[in-house]
Amino acid sequence: MTDFQVTILGNGSAVPTAFQNPSAQILQYGHRRFLIDCAEGTQIQMLKYQVSRKSLSHIFISHLHGDHYFGLIGLISTLHLYGREQPLHIFGPKPLEEIVHMQLKYSDTRLKYPLLFHTLRDAELIYEDSMLEIKCFPLNHRVPTWGFVFREKEKERNLRKDFVARYAPGVEQMHRIKQGGDFVLPDGNIIKNKEITTDPSLPRSYAYCSDTAYDPKIISFIRSVDMLYHEATFDDALVDVAAEKFHSTARQAAQIAKEASVGKLLLGHFSARFSDVSHLLEEAREVFENTLLSIQGETYVVGR
Amino acid sequence: MTDFQVTILGNGSAVPTAFQNPSAQILQYGHRRFLIDCAEGTQIQMLKYQVSRKSLSHIFISHLHGDHYFGLIGLISTLHLYGREQPLHIFGPKPLEEIVHMQLKYSDTRLKYPLLFHTLRDAELIYEDSMLEIKCFPLNHRVPTWGFVFREKEKERNLRKDFVARYAPGVEQMHRIKQGGDFVLPDGNIIKNKEITTDPSLPRSYAYCSDTAYDPKIISFIRSVDMLYHEATFDDALVDVAAEKFHSTARQAAQIAKEASVGKLLLGHFSARFSDVSHLLEEAREVFENTLLSIQGETYVVGR
Repeated sequence: MTDFQVTILGNGSAVPTAFQNPSAQILQYGHRRFLIDCAEGTQIQMLKYQVSRKSLSHIFISHLHGDHYFGLIGLISTLHLYGREQPLHIFGPKPLEEIVHMQLKYSDTRLKYPLLFHTLRDAELIYEDSMLEIKCFPLNHRVPTWGFVFREKEKERNLRKDFVARYAPGVEQMHRIKQGGDFVLPDGNIIKNKEITTDPSLPRSYAYCSDTAYDPKIISFIRSVDMLYHEATFDDALVDVAAEKFHSTARQAAQIAKEASVGKLLLGHFSARFSDVSHLLEEAREVFENTLLSIQGETYVVGR
Repeated sequence: MTDFQVTILGNGSAVPTAFQNPSAQILQYGHRRFLIDCAEGTQIQMLKYQVSRKSLSHIFISHLHGDHYFGLIGLISTLHLYGREQPLHIFGPKPLEEIVHMQLKYSDTRLKYPLLFHTLRDAELIYEDSMLEIKCFPLNHRVPTWGFVFREKEKERNLRKDFVARYAPGVEQMHRIKQGGDFVLPDGNIIKNKEITTDPSLPRSYAYCSDTAYDPKIISFIRSVDMLYHEATFDDALVDVAAEKFHSTARQAAQIAKEASVGKLLLGHFSARFSDVSHLLEEAREVFENTLLSIQGETYVVGR
């Protein structure tokens, strides 16, 4: 089965500390490498955790608070200095292009590779290939902010080996059967699809929601994903601060996970004020049992 | 004697590596903390090497190549988030203000402290207090770039203790004597200044030259400084690359040090291609013996 996993390069909020980088993570799906957010120091985190920078093709920036994108210009420059030639796609709020271009202009840098900006707007499909699609959707924060959901497409049915060995169907027939069609014998007899195929694995999905106030409006976009990364900046004691700053508590993240019927909840974007975040896990698990604390440098497999 | 020392936060060029941050250093003079250049990750380096970020008052950005300033916006933001109120002065090329303000604007950040930009122009005095002055001067690089020289002012003469104990001179008289005046007794007799004072320590000085091609025009600005930090991006074998990219070899840095009659040369801004830079030291010492390789995290005392 195609690899589908996420590596946490940083899960802190607001400021870097000696132990915790701000937001950045690598979503790997097969050979694809997607970077979600890119705080200062992300390129160093990629070195540290041995994530290939060269294989990056798409970068998604959720919003323009610095702890989510201040590392982008450095990464863009480094890829240039290392001679990258293949295109790099950047998805983000509209002003990001202006910010990046201004800095390239004043350093008199003409990138050796195409840098392609895509502006995030409302909720829409922003990436699609034969196996995967990615949508963005609005979160509820102090500045325009988007979440991202990565969903595998419905897969083709699997042909039973004994059927293939016995009937040696042609390429076109195999394609039709994989799509759910029956097999028609030369004599006109029909073998039902379910006798010659097995169910494909269920499509897997991952959603990223940071930064956002508790907002049930996001549920429709992330319903039933296998894994939800949701910000949990604050604890129960700071629920008013969370509301004021348009952030969530761990319990609120769990509430979203529960209402959206996700498979697993991964908490992150922890306030630097907590040297220990184990109570965030306890508070979340009171609402949604299948919760984990994300750990910087760890990789989590997406799937049930 | 007032402390005067420099701590190297980063001395790499172009890209950060797992072992070497790009340019940033803290010059400490008494209670003053000056930051010279601010590559990505500088705020983390300050944490790592226990340099107080709060006590920073002035930041000097030599030029707008990313390896010299991509960490500035993050540092500015962190100081804001930690509640700084005292002003922060930034000296740099003119577009720096636009770059910083654009990023603050799109993150909807209203800084809690005054951020005061000062545009570098040619060679001029950019800072002065009772004990120290700082001048900038042009270097020879691909984009407008400045070096900085920090010079202690001439100090007052020291009063001999036996003189003070015997004659108990008044405040005004002491001041005049410290400036070199003689002591006039009530009966009109005169005691010569050199009999009642000792020479002050010599003014100390530090210069920072990164990035620059070999260019004797900078010598007049840095003549006789006690310590010169000069870029040494390349080695002898890459002298043509150095010329093409407007950088210097270690030997060229030593040539500048020699012609400028500096006390000590500190090499830095090493290319990431060198895992070992000991040959740079050898090449420089053939021209100028009193040369050191700067080491990230180390502190060097300025003085003879």
